[in-house]
Amino acid sequence: MPDSQTKYPTVAVVGARGLVGREALSILLERGWASSSLRVFGSPRSVGETIDYGDHKPVIEAMDTIVRDAPDYVLLCADTDTARSVVDLLSDQSTTIIDNSSAFRLHSGTPLVIPEVNGELLQHDLRVIANPNCSTIMLLTALSPLRAAFGVRSVQVSTYQAVSGAGRAGLESLHTQTRAKLNGEPIPDGVFPVPCAFDVFEHESEIDPTSGFNGEESKMIEESRKIWESPALSLLPTCVRVPVERAHAQSITVEFNRTVTADQVRDVLGQSPGLALVEPGEPLTPASIAGQDEVFVGRIRIDPSDSRRVLLWVCCDQIRKGAALNAVQIMERLIGIRDQSSASSARLTSTIEASGYACSS
Amino acid sequence: MPDSQTKYPTVAVVGARGLVGREALSILLERGWASSSLRVFGSPRSVGETIDYGDHKPVIEAMDTIVRDAPDYVLLCADTDTARSVVDLLSDQSTTIIDNSSAFRLHSGTPLVIPEVNGELLQHDLRVIANPNCSTIMLLTALSPLRAAFGVRSVQVSTYQAVSGAGRAGLESLHTQTRAKLNGEPIPDGVFPVPCAFDVFEHESEIDPTSGFNGEESKMIEESRKIWESPALSLLPTCVRVPVERAHAQSITVEFNRTVTADQVRDVLGQSPGLALVEPGEPLTPASIAGQDEVFVGRIRIDPSDSRRVLLWVCCDQIRKGAALNAVQIMERLIGIRDQSSASSARLTSTIEASGYACSS
Repeated sequence: MPDSQTKYPTVAVVGARGLVGREALSILLERGWASSSLRVFGSPRSVGETIDYGDHKPVIEAMDTIVRDAPDYVLLCADTDTARSVVDLLSDQSTTIIDNSSAFRLHSGTPLVIPEVNGELLQHDLRVIANPNCSTIMLLTALSPLRAAFGVRSVQVSTYQAVSGAGRAGLESLHTQTRAKLNGEPIPDGVFPVPCAFDVFEHESEIDPTSGFNGEESKMIEESRKIWESPALSLLPTCVRVPVERAHAQSITVEFNRTVTADQVRDVLGQSPGLALVEPGEPLTPASIAGQDEVFVGRIRIDPSDSRRVLLWVCCDQIRKGAALNAVQIMERLIGIRDQSSASSARLTSTIEASGYACSS
Repeated sequence: MPDSQTKYPTVAVVGARGLVGREALSILLERGWASSSLRVFGSPRSVGETIDYGDHKPVIEAMDTIVRDAPDYVLLCADTDTARSVVDLLSDQSTTIIDNSSAFRLHSGTPLVIPEVNGELLQHDLRVIANPNCSTIMLLTALSPLRAAFGVRSVQVSTYQAVSGAGRAGLESLHTQTRAKLNGEPIPDGVFPVPCAFDVFEHESEIDPTSGFNGEESKMIEESRKIWESPALSLLPTCVRVPVERAHAQSITVEFNRTVTADQVRDVLGQSPGLALVEPGEPLTPASIAGQDEVFVGRIRIDPSDSRRVLLWVCCDQIRKGAALNAVQIMERLIGIRDQSSASSARLTSTIEASGYACSS
C-alpha cells in the first residue's frame, strides 16, 4: 500500500484568518487533529503571522507554497478568486479540496454536499467538493428527512441572517454603527449598503434584474435543486440581514405531498442526524444557539386549513454547521471512506496473497 | 340643526403618555387640530402632568372625569382593561370611541376598520370602532387592492417587528441591553422573555398550545378574516421581534386566483391609496421609513414556477399607520360623514322649507 494511505492525513486551512477559517481550526483542534499534520495559509498581508492552535502556533504560509509537499486535504475558506487559484495550483496533485466559496458549487462535475443529506456522493477520488451556502445547508438539513418521509411540493423561506455572514467586517460594522447610534453620533459607513444598526435590510448580494431575486436567494434556489436532484423544485426565498452577531434564523413554510400531523413531523425530525428539536414555548433564537453544531428546529405548526402545509422556525450557527463544520464533516467522511477502502484493499491483498495470486494492475 | 353638528368637534386622547397616544397628538397637531377642542387623559400617576402640544400644554386629566362634558370622539390608546372601562364610562354618551386595543376587535357589532380597505363600514352613529393590530393593518393595506384585482387564495407572512411594538419599555430594553452587550457587561432583564440585544425571537404574546400560533399571529389571522369578510381565509403568519427601534417589515407570499405579471402588480399598487412603491434595488428598510405615513411595498417577485404566486417586502411605521394614524384617519372619515350628513340635512331642510313642507320626524 502507498504511504499516503497509512500515515495520518495532512490538511491545509486556506483563509486561516477569516471567520470560517478560524472556526475550521477550532473544530480541528476540538477533534484532536495534530498540529504536525496541519498547515495554514492566508492572504499576502498575513503571511508570517502565527495562528493560535492549542499550545502550537502554526505560521501562515504564502498561497503559492501549497504545492510543495501538497496536503491530502484543503479546507478552502476564502473568496471565489482565491478558491479558483488554489484549485489551479493543486491541479497536478492528488489533494482533495473542500471549498466553502461559491466558485464550483454549480459545476456539473463537482459534488455539492451536506453529509447528512447527500453524503453518499462522497467517494475516494474526488478532487473538489463544494460546501453549500450557509442558508442552503440549514434549510436542507432541516427539510431533507421530512422530504424523505412525506415528499415536498414547495418551500417558502424568509431568512433572518446575522451580519457575520459578511465576515469580520460585518461584525465590526454592527458594533461600530450601533455604538454611534446609541451615542447619538453620525453613523460611520460600514460594509453593508445601508447602516445595520437597529435595522433589517435585503441581503447585500447583487439583484437579478429579471427575477428580482438577490444573489443569496438565487444560490438557495440553485443549490437546493442540485442537492435534492430536483431541477424544477419550487423554492421561494426572501433573504434578509438582521442586526445579529452570529447564527441565522429561517421562517419556513413547506408543503408536503401528503397531510401530516405535528407529531409525525416531530417524530421524523427527532430521529434525524444533525438536528435538535426545540419544544413549543422554549425560546429558540440565533444568539442562544450560536457556537453549537446542530440545526435547531422549533415552532412546528400545521396549517389548519390544509394539513399538507407546515410552518417551522429554524436556527443554525452559519459559521459552524453553515460553513466550517460541514466542511470538516465532509473531510472526516472522506477519511473514513479512504480508511475503509485501505482496509478492504489490505484485506483483498491478504486474500489474494493467501490464495497464491498476485495482482499486477 | 343641533349645536354639536355645527361646532368644531372635541376629541380626547386616552393614554396620552404612551407611544401611540403621543403619536396621535403629534398627528392632530400636524393637522391643525385646535388645542381648545382637545383633552388628554392618562394613568393615575400621570394625572396633573402636562403634555406638549405646539405652543400649548394641556394637562392630563383623570380617566373618570371624561364623562363630564363628554368629547365627541375618543382616541383610545391604552391597554384592553382601560379600553373596556372607558367604553363603560361613556356608555350613556353620544361619544364615538376609536379603540387601539384588542378589546373589541372581534366583537360582532364592532367594525374593525382600515379606511383604505373597508372605510365604507364607517357610519354616522357608531359608538365603538376598533383599530386593527399594526401587523394586520400593514398586511391588508398592501394586499387589499391586489385582492380586488386578482382574488387571493392564500397568504403567508413572516414579520420583522420593532421592539417599540411593546411600547416605551421595549425601546428601553433595546437600548439598555444593547449598551450592556457592547460594553461586555451582564445583560439586565428587559420587557421581553429573552434579551433583545443583537437577537431575533418569537413574538412575546401567549402561545396557543393547540395550534402553536402566538397571540400576535392569531390576531393577524382572525382580524384579517373579519376585515376581508372571509372566515376561511388561509393566512399563515410567523411573528418575530427584531432589534429595530421603530417600524415593522413583512416578507409576504400571496397566491392569487389568476396568474399575474410584476407590471400588473406594480400598476395596481401604484394606483392604491396609502401605499408607496419602492423600485428594485432602492433600499427599503424599517428604519428608513420610520415616521412616514405610507405602507411601503417593494421587492415584487413572481414565482417563476407558478405566476399566481408573488413575493413582496413591505415596511410600515407600526406606531403611525399601524396605530395612531389609522385611528385619526377613521375619525376624520367620520367627521367628514357627519359634515356631509349635516350639509345634506341642511340642504334637505332648505328644500323642504322652500317647498312649504315641514318634517316632523
